[in-house]
Amino acid sequence: MSSLTDLCRYPIVQAPMAGGPSTPRLVAAVADAGGLGFLAAGYRTGGEMRQEIDQVRSTTAGAFGVNLFMPQPPPADPGAAAAYRDRLAAVAGTYDTALGDPGPGSDDPDDSEGSDKFDGSDGYDAKVAALLAEPVPVVSFTFGCPTRDTLDAFARAGTYTIVTVTTAEEARDAQWAGADAVCAQGVEAGGHQSTHHDDPRADHTGIGLLTLVTQVRETVQLPVVAAGGIMRGAQIAAALAAGADAAQLGTAFLACPESGAHPLHKQALTSPMFVRTALTRAFSGRPARGLVNRFVREHDPYAPAAYPQVHRVTSGLRKAAARAGDAQSMALWAGQGHRMARELPAGELVELLAAEMSETAQRAVGMRSAQ
Amino acid sequence: MSSLTDLCRYPIVQAPMAGGPSTPRLVAAVADAGGLGFLAAGYRTGGEMRQEIDQVRSTTAGAFGVNLFMPQPPPADPGAAAAYRDRLAAVAGTYDTALGDPGPGSDDPDDSEGSDKFDGSDGYDAKVAALLAEPVPVVSFTFGCPTRDTLDAFARAGTYTIVTVTTAEEARDAQWAGADAVCAQGVEAGGHQSTHHDDPRADHTGIGLLTLVTQVRETVQLPVVAAGGIMRGAQIAAALAAGADAAQLGTAFLACPESGAHPLHKQALTSPMFVRTALTRAFSGRPARGLVNRFVREHDPYAPAAYPQVHRVTSGLRKAAARAGDAQSMALWAGQGHRMARELPAGELVELLAAEMSETAQRAVGMRSAQ
Repeated sequence: MSSLTDLCRYPIVQAPMAGGPSTPRLVAAVADAGGLGFLAAGYRTGGEMRQEIDQVRSTTAGAFGVNLFMPQPPPADPGAAAAYRDRLAAVAGTYDTALGDPGPGSDDPDDSEGSDKFDGSDGYDAKVAALLAEPVPVVSFTFGCPTRDTLDAFARAGTYTIVTVTTAEEARDAQWAGADAVCAQGVEAGGHQSTHHDDPRADHTGIGLLTLVTQVRETVQLPVVAAGGIMRGAQIAAALAAGADAAQLGTAFLACPESGAHPLHKQALTSPMFVRTALTRAFSGRPARGLVNRFVREHDPYAPAAYPQVHRVTSGLRKAAARAGDAQSMALWAGQGHRMARELPAGELVELLAAEMSETAQRAVGMRSAQ
Repeated sequence: MSSLTDLCRYPIVQAPMAGGPSTPRLVAAVADAGGLGFLAAGYRTGGEMRQEIDQVRSTTAGAFGVNLFMPQPPPADPGAAAAYRDRLAAVAGTYDTALGDPGPGSDDPDDSEGSDKFDGSDGYDAKVAALLAEPVPVVSFTFGCPTRDTLDAFARAGTYTIVTVTTAEEARDAQWAGADAVCAQGVEAGGHQSTHHDDPRADHTGIGLLTLVTQVRETVQLPVVAAGGIMRGAQIAAALAAGADAAQLGTAFLACPESGAHPLHKQALTSPMFVRTALTRAFSGRPARGLVNRFVREHDPYAPAAYPQVHRVTSGLRKAAARAGDAQSMALWAGQGHRMARELPAGELVELLAAEMSETAQRAVGMRSAQ
């Protein structure tokens, strides 16, 4: 079993970004430059996942990871997603598109993101079986913690496992279950918060990364990957100073030419039209951070806790908005540092981040010698 | 004009904590140990402020600061605080106490926290005049940015000025107005967020500290004090790596014996009864972070944006709860790192934080040499 920092030259991880951005090309470019790239199996079928793994392997000999979404329980209120769907009818009309069926097994022709039996499981069991049959170097998990049996099976297969956590308690669960490392995801992070149990009554607004890393560091003995809002090498150095072993960056890589994010999404990151982000259930039914656009402003206030039902309801609408060139109804996932995004090839970005880290370390050494 | 780091031996600032915790004894202990302590003039009369300054001066020759609350505009809905008051009648009854009058100039006998003419101004003009007549080394500002004239006057008086900001835009305003430094307050911070304009429609949930420090660093040329959730020396080192010049800690000093926080408040910081914090308007009408207790759970959902009217309404109730030994209706201000609080004398805490910083720096140097 290799350790986290043996897997790549730099402690720089490209975050899995489900729904398109984490292309095999992006993952391979990051791996070639000495970082750790991640494919995102969420919303993909097992077959699509295997295909993407093959594409990465045919491009790079570097290490990479695959991220899995954990199966989700049915929503507390089974009718909430349907009621939400009713309230979106008018906006779907403006894009001349139909809303998706919130229930499982629908064959909504607009839903090309997932399997035709997309439900709360995200095909987890089949993907785990495929990854155990043909192991990859690293597998990470979002929205929960696998069973000890599953983590043990990955360990036997030689796969390094990372469980994404948003609190010290979730990190303790991950350690108990046998994870090799945790990814501590701060409230700054773009996209979905990996909260293990989405309880709308808990009013969980998330913990800032610098606080979370220290809490996790003092709670578990596992290596910690810090995620959330990181855009610069100095911030990676800061995360390491706080006790992290590596840093995971999503939004920073979203703007790369190799990323599969929609061009309007990439432009929006630094557009003066979008000045802030918010956590919202409006697009998927689970809290996720994105740029605040008209859709978020209008529909966040009554979006229910119903994932992935709400994702299915809005999927076609978001694609229709993208086709219409209208960023106001797209899910513009972004971390709080989005305005610092740099449109560089992924390999150059990894090298630049590493150089900035090194500069920061040299500055610290200089400060120390001057004392 | 001395620079921020010339004022004290360590880049460690004890945050101003209004309402009691920032006692002259705490401030002097921090100053004697080589940190920068802050008195909190908020909710105090000008006379009380001067008295506390004299107490600090009679105890230490070290540098210290005074924090001022900026005057607040009237709330958008003048009736909101009164309606909130009506809904709190039952809970006030359980503590056998009366609710305060939300309007200015009330003579509520329970309101011993401020002047008898407490309104949105917090006596700002008189306090500024007093601080210009008898200058202190540092003055910081919360809830807004002073005029250029006021900052210029402080500069002429030899007082170093720090404006507390929660966004890069607020930092730009502070630089433009002539502040000497900014305090970048992350969403992790306990107590009031220093947002310059409290707009409930803006859904401002705050920026994580590590992201905010970098955004501010890249926006203004001023020194940056990092605040929010910091409890350990390694986190101070992290903030400096990210580009901050010093770190400001509130909750870490709240638990010190010299702090004037209520004993129940100190105990609550590490009590298993209080496992999370939230930003709430329930106590004051402005978003402030505290431990989630029954009062927050029950009254946050409908608390209006009406500061300081709501503060006046709940002031007597909170004191009655404290007298009854019931932490469930007290304002238990706390940052997200509260469970890491250490009950140490303030001077020892400063020394420990400085030693932890130095250890972190040595570890970084060690990692560097090993490469």
